[in-house]
Amino acid sequence: MTTLLKTARPKTKRLDALTSLVDQALERYLPKAAVPPQVLHEAMRYCVFTGGKRFRPLLCLGSCETVGAPARQALTVACALELIHTYSLVHDDLPAMDNADERRGQPTCHRKFGEGNAILVGDALLTLAFEWLGRNGTTNSTEIIRAISQACGTTGLIGGQVLDLQAISQPRTATERTLRDVAQRKTAALIAASVHAGALAGGADAAQLKTLQRYGQSIGLAFQFIDDIHDHEGLAQVMGADEARVEADRLIRSATAAIEPFGKRADVLRQLAAWLSITSQANQTR
Amino acid sequence: MTTLLKTARPKTKRLDALTSLVDQALERYLPKAAVPPQVLHEAMRYCVFTGGKRFRPLLCLGSCETVGAPARQALTVACALELIHTYSLVHDDLPAMDNADERRGQPTCHRKFGEGNAILVGDALLTLAFEWLGRNGTTNSTEIIRAISQACGTTGLIGGQVLDLQAISQPRTATERTLRDVAQRKTAALIAASVHAGALAGGADAAQLKTLQRYGQSIGLAFQFIDDIHDHEGLAQVMGADEARVEADRLIRSATAAIEPFGKRADVLRQLAAWLSITSQANQTR
Repeated sequence: MTTLLKTARPKTKRLDALTSLVDQALERYLPKAAVPPQVLHEAMRYCVFTGGKRFRPLLCLGSCETVGAPARQALTVACALELIHTYSLVHDDLPAMDNADERRGQPTCHRKFGEGNAILVGDALLTLAFEWLGRNGTTNSTEIIRAISQACGTTGLIGGQVLDLQAISQPRTATERTLRDVAQRKTAALIAASVHAGALAGGADAAQLKTLQRYGQSIGLAFQFIDDIHDHEGLAQVMGADEARVEADRLIRSATAAIEPFGKRADVLRQLAAWLSITSQANQTR
Repeated sequence: MTTLLKTARPKTKRLDALTSLVDQALERYLPKAAVPPQVLHEAMRYCVFTGGKRFRPLLCLGSCETVGAPARQALTVACALELIHTYSLVHDDLPAMDNADERRGQPTCHRKFGEGNAILVGDALLTLAFEWLGRNGTTNSTEIIRAISQACGTTGLIGGQVLDLQAISQPRTATERTLRDVAQRKTAALIAASVHAGALAGGADAAQLKTLQRYGQSIGLAFQFIDDIHDHEGLAQVMGADEARVEADRLIRSATAAIEPFGKRADVLRQLAAWLSITSQANQTR
């Protein structure tokens, strides 16, 4: 076994600073809870601000920096990605889906605000994300919107949820191949799109985009492996925890190797790869 | 009482031709039902192709034509608007919302495909709409995305749904003012945005946009009045059916007057105003 998961450093100062930047922007951009309809805005804020490591926004900002632009240039896009991630959790937790009572140690949105409101909160977060993407002001706006919407659509996030719903109903027959497909769509697609969108916001050229694609795909898949290892389910269950961990480490090494040519500019992405390992061990991947 | 509702002509050849154009484009653009995950694509097609008058797409195409561009220039935007409208119906019909068993004489999406899938079908339709908007290729793409996402968001469609959910729980205390607010957000906002987006796709100037805004707002509000008159609920219940009809007629006349300066180029919008009245009488507004 490799030792990457054991030697990874905790969240760095730089990651902390960027997390604060994202949190402050979300605080500023999201409608205040007092704006009618209050229950909707209150619930949106509840879901966005109850925990969340801002992993996708950080990838987006780090990627923007990696291609040579200031991280702030991707801030609106980064915040939109967090809204999309949050919407997917709110809908995923619904009684007709995972039927979860708690998320990040707090009542899920539908447990706190009712099921009808939770459906609408998810819809509102997704819609607001696209409104922000339409406002982000970079020259690549429509390209960013295409990349993100594709990653969230029937070949990405939502397609993965459907496959997951089917897998839940037949947990014993799910093969490694099916579960890899689910992981690819449900998790890796949006994570890879976060990296891609950040690079686009930073004005990346085709070669940079291609290199970062390898990083994004590997990190995205590693994320799901580690999540499954911790929860003793999915890929870890089918492959065995040890083999799943070997694969996760391999993916993280592959991601780190991909960004080597960018040198110091890729520090944030490098730190995120390391951080992914350590936070996952502490059961905080989501 | 005015006689507009009685003298309105049925759907014209021109409207029929544009409806076919939209239907063919939807058929072409939507992933085939055989593409995995099949249940998702099958259900999306079921919802989009089970009825639907394509009112919003027709407004969009008509508006594009009104500002002097070929209707086809707004076709992708028009189709995206139909997806958004369909998504809103799928989620609105869910057990936690209106709990409807039928829509357009057929089982609702969740009755046919299950509740979990119906939530995801709505999500997928909304997401795909933004993917199409990101691809529409007109120079005003991001402006169109902003306008439509705002109309669908917490100050528009979704905000209206939340107010509606609250009104459902206290039907006796809803005032005309509240119901007008619901109608404005839940119905008029997206209809007005359909007109606005079509004009943007056609390259409208500021003056044209302003004139068409009056048309869009009036038609949108009239739509909800007529819907309520037919269903004996909402505004018609609070104001009385006769007064509600007077108001609907006033709004339709106001819309028609607004587009007078555009002459023959506004024929489609004129026909849609007339058609709205007559189809509403036959209980086919949605």
